[in-house]
Amino acid sequence: MVRTRALGIDPGSRVTGFGVVEQRGYDLVYIGSGRLAPGDALPFPARLKMIYQGLGEAIDQYRPTEAAVEDLFFAKNAKSALILGHARGVCLLAAENSGLPIFEYSPRQIKQSVVGYGAAAKEQVQEMVRLLLGLPERLPKDTSDALATAICHLHTQGSTALRNGLMDRAGPNKDLEL
Amino acid sequence: MVRTRALGIDPGSRVTGFGVVEQRGYDLVYIGSGRLAPGDALPFPARLKMIYQGLGEAIDQYRPTEAAVEDLFFAKNAKSALILGHARGVCLLAAENSGLPIFEYSPRQIKQSVVGYGAAAKEQVQEMVRLLLGLPERLPKDTSDALATAICHLHTQGSTALRNGLMDRAGPNKDLEL
Repeated sequence: MVRTRALGIDPGSRVTGFGVVEQRGYDLVYIGSGRLAPGDALPFPARLKMIYQGLGEAIDQYRPTEAAVEDLFFAKNAKSALILGHARGVCLLAAENSGLPIFEYSPRQIKQSVVGYGAAAKEQVQEMVRLLLGLPERLPKDTSDALATAICHLHTQGSTALRNGLMDRAGPNKDLEL
Repeated sequence: MVRTRALGIDPGSRVTGFGVVEQRGYDLVYIGSGRLAPGDALPFPARLKMIYQGLGEAIDQYRPTEAAVEDLFFAKNAKSALILGHARGVCLLAAENSGLPIFEYSPRQIKQSVVGYGAAAKEQVQEMVRLLLGLPERLPKDTSDALATAICHLHTQGSTALRNGLMDRAGPNKDLEL
């Protein structure tokens, strides 16, 4: 059985969250997660380096097979968009340099996929991530959002695989027809 | 004599220009320049990788001692700012990962330093870069802007060095007092 292990990334210049989730048949298994939070005392380029290196180390450690990132083409204003772009750029670069296929999902797709409602509140996302992964407690927002992005990717890829009959051949659900 | 060799960078997701200029006493010497223009056909993360790798190769080839980048905290809109931020982020990362000190200058500072007028037109910048570096013809805007950023940095550092008496000790102008 092919196992998909997704790295979800929630980029931010203050905190970048990441989370790794594996699809095993119909189960979603929590593999690991973390927060990269370079302090404000560091110069901006050094903060970017810490995010880039931290993600690279997470990829080495958790060995995801693909990466998923929020597709953020809106922002409060041009200045915050520019700063966020720097962080998101080095995140994409870390995934690309590790040879991972990269997928992007809108915030609405992610909420729809995890909570079943595209305009869900942050707390609903945190709680559903906790429930879907069987975690003892809610995770911080950055980590939870990263895991939600990974889950969205696995749901999306999973349904594509099911439609294409891939899981029917590979997985334990041989009588499934969609 | 300490020689400062500045790498100027003009980040862009379509074209990133770079230019290397060395200060030799009062002379500015053109060392090299280039344009990194990943085609639109490439996925966005692959374009970021090409910019990052291209700058890394330029740093290996031209061995600058410091880097200068335009400090761009404005943009037409949030979407273009976000995209530009990605490119600028991987440029800063390339310089940071090469251990270069990074300096930032506003567009106004750069024009002021090169043309002597903060609201100078693009063509004036291109022409002054050509004259200051003794080039046979004007360079494309991306390259010219990158060289202008390097020149601005050398002018700024040079005047600081002069004020601090560093060039007085190190350089050929021993009778200079500022």
